[in-house]
Amino acid sequence: MGKSYQIAVIPGDGTGPEVIREGVKVIEAAASRFGFSLSLNYFDWGGDRYLKTGETIPEGGIEELKRHDAIYLGAIGHPDVAPGILEKDILLRIRFELDQYINLRPVKLYPGVWTPIKDKGPEEIDFVVVRENTEGLYAGGGGFLRKGTPQEVAVQESINTRFGVERCIRYAFELCRKRNKKKQLTLVGKTNVLTFAWNLWERTFYEVAKEYPDIKPDYAHVDATCMWFVKNPEWFDVIVTDNMFGDIITDLGAMIQGGMGIAAGGNINPEGVSMFEPIGGSAPKYTGQNVINPLAAICAGMMMLEHLGEEEAALAIEKAVIKVCRDHLKSLSAGKMGYTTQEVGDLVAKYTTEDV
Amino acid sequence: MGKSYQIAVIPGDGTGPEVIREGVKVIEAAASRFGFSLSLNYFDWGGDRYLKTGETIPEGGIEELKRHDAIYLGAIGHPDVAPGILEKDILLRIRFELDQYINLRPVKLYPGVWTPIKDKGPEEIDFVVVRENTEGLYAGGGGFLRKGTPQEVAVQESINTRFGVERCIRYAFELCRKRNKKKQLTLVGKTNVLTFAWNLWERTFYEVAKEYPDIKPDYAHVDATCMWFVKNPEWFDVIVTDNMFGDIITDLGAMIQGGMGIAAGGNINPEGVSMFEPIGGSAPKYTGQNVINPLAAICAGMMMLEHLGEEEAALAIEKAVIKVCRDHLKSLSAGKMGYTTQEVGDLVAKYTTEDV
Ligand SMILES: CC(C)[C@H](C(=O)O)[C@@H](O)C(=O)O
Ligand SMILES: CC(C)[C@H](C(=O)O)[C@@H](O)C(=O)O
Repeated sequence: MGKSYQIAVIPGDGTGPEVIREGVKVIEAAASRFGFSLSLNYFDWGGDRYLKTGETIPEGGIEELKRHDAIYLGAIGHPDVAPGILEKDILLRIRFELDQYINLRPVKLYPGVWTPIKDKGPEEIDFVVVRENTEGLYAGGGGFLRKGTPQEVAVQESINTRFGVERCIRYAFELCRKRNKKKQLTLVGKTNVLTFAWNLWERTFYEVAKEYPDIKPDYAHVDATCMWFVKNPEWFDVIVTDNMFGDIITDLGAMIQGGMGIAAGGNINPEGVSMFEPIGGSAPKYTGQNVINPLAAICAGMMMLEHLGEEEAALAIEKAVIKVCRDHLKSLSAGKMGYTTQEVGDLVAKYTTEDV
Repeated sequence: MGKSYQIAVIPGDGTGPEVIREGVKVIEAAASRFGFSLSLNYFDWGGDRYLKTGETIPEGGIEELKRHDAIYLGAIGHPDVAPGILEKDILLRIRFELDQYINLRPVKLYPGVWTPIKDKGPEEIDFVVVRENTEGLYAGGGGFLRKGTPQEVAVQESINTRFGVERCIRYAFELCRKRNKKKQLTLVGKTNVLTFAWNLWERTFYEVAKEYPDIKPDYAHVDATCMWFVKNPEWFDVIVTDNMFGDIITDLGAMIQGGMGIAAGGNINPEGVSMFEPIGGSAPKYTGQNVINPLAAICAGMMMLEHLGEEEAALAIEKAVIKVCRDHLKSLSAGKMGYTTQEVGDLVAKYTTEDV
């Protein structure tokens, strides 16, 4: 008998439910082929519930999440809710309260997928960004002085701890060893200007590096990194960086791997409960039209299964996604795929159960 | 009789002197054609001097700079000097002490220049980034707690003032009005997470916007902005952002306009002395080989003349640069231009004196 996993599903806002529906279809297809089962518990958190009840995550909600093996999230963000509320009170709150201290973002161009950059293919675009996910500028530190006056000062603090930085860097070294590609880990920072935060990062990085003589430690400034993503993405293997820089470079990474239609990420607590999500937004204008691309959500599901240890299942999904990209879709953009949301889900689910 | 301008020239490190030499050649050609004169005072600040004397900017150096009409900088950065020292003690110090509160970065793809992104040409890549240049994370605020212990905390502060933010935003609105293109000013920030700093920016932005009914105020998150730079650069006209985000997005901007071989910027104090620089580094490995591309330094010189009010001269240089890119250079990369550094300077200088 295969294992059974308790999955908390938060479809969320806008097109979130549509893409999660296809993702669920695909992970269930993988489960039945590879002999494990998924028990899905749905949570209606998001903009609609907030507008009706004023609640983002209800009392006890975080505790409930903790009783699951993983969390599968669609998208958070509603046109009628002021920006920041749902992001902070749902998405960031889960990341912080479940101590999901790694944001894992594979940047991988699949064959047949269109990238906006020239002369680069799947060979060149294949790296992983490890983003610290619980501190830095996201810690929420800061405040106002003389708010609303001509003498106002607004301070925003990046708080970095040895504890938080070290566990993130260790995770990245381990991942780099396991990936077994170039065996190169690049710290992306701004040591020449942000001399407190990045001094801690740099010191920790080179100290931990001594324990990994098989990995080449490398460093790049964040500004230069954005240039190389576009010009020489093949230079990278694994990248480790802080929360804010990670946010920026992973979006750029998403674009070069084909865009929001395909990019997925994991919010990982290696000792706790992790959450997987397509990294695009809720795309409200496409809601209910059956035109949004569900591949990013499907890839998030794939990452979730891999994280749970179902590596064969994850591989089967990846092969199916590659086949659909290569043989079917005209584009990854909403409304231009040549297929409906549901048809894309059906195709991936079908190929997931076959040897493709 | 035309005017005469006092220019402080800081050739700096590595290939800085070589590219500044060509830049000087070109601005002098423009001066003699358009009837003004340049009086150049050279300063040997940089890595070599620092290694010999331990001094970065000598006593009274900043005061001397203030007696000039503008500053022309090559590049700062020496392989034998620890990163951060020269950047902070020369480049950032000048920006701060001369209160050059605007970092102006035109992102303009010239015809014939290779861009790493697909399907975009000079029509689509033509916008300007206005980066705040004296505060934010660059203010140097922060510190360590329990440094070197497992309980270490490193804090880096972004300090934003109404005064600093407002003058920067006003500059951007004025520029946008003057550019007269799409009449759209995009604030690039992270309002949904950095709720102190970006709340101040956002409030100030929309308040000042009321005084510019002819300009469309627009907002984009910094992460999404990086995606659009690569996918839809034509969406932008003028961008205004803080110091750190500006640093990141202008490097990405440099790449899409053809790279470090062509990208120039101005550190502007509209009421004081401004400094113009190619934005690439000192490229030590190409030093003395006569292979580095001087166009970025030449474009910095062009921006300097425009800033001094010599608009015809600036335009003549721009036309000459465009002609050289289109009719001569095989590539903008060092060693691959098909011409030496000096030959490129000669060509641009020649065309600057002709009607091309
Ligand atoms: C929605 C937003 C709060 C979030 C972030 O900034 O982390 C998103 O951009 C991401 O990268 O997951
Ligand atoms: C050299 C460095 C200090 C500088 C900065 O970060 O501002 C550079 O990257 C720039 O953009 O001019």
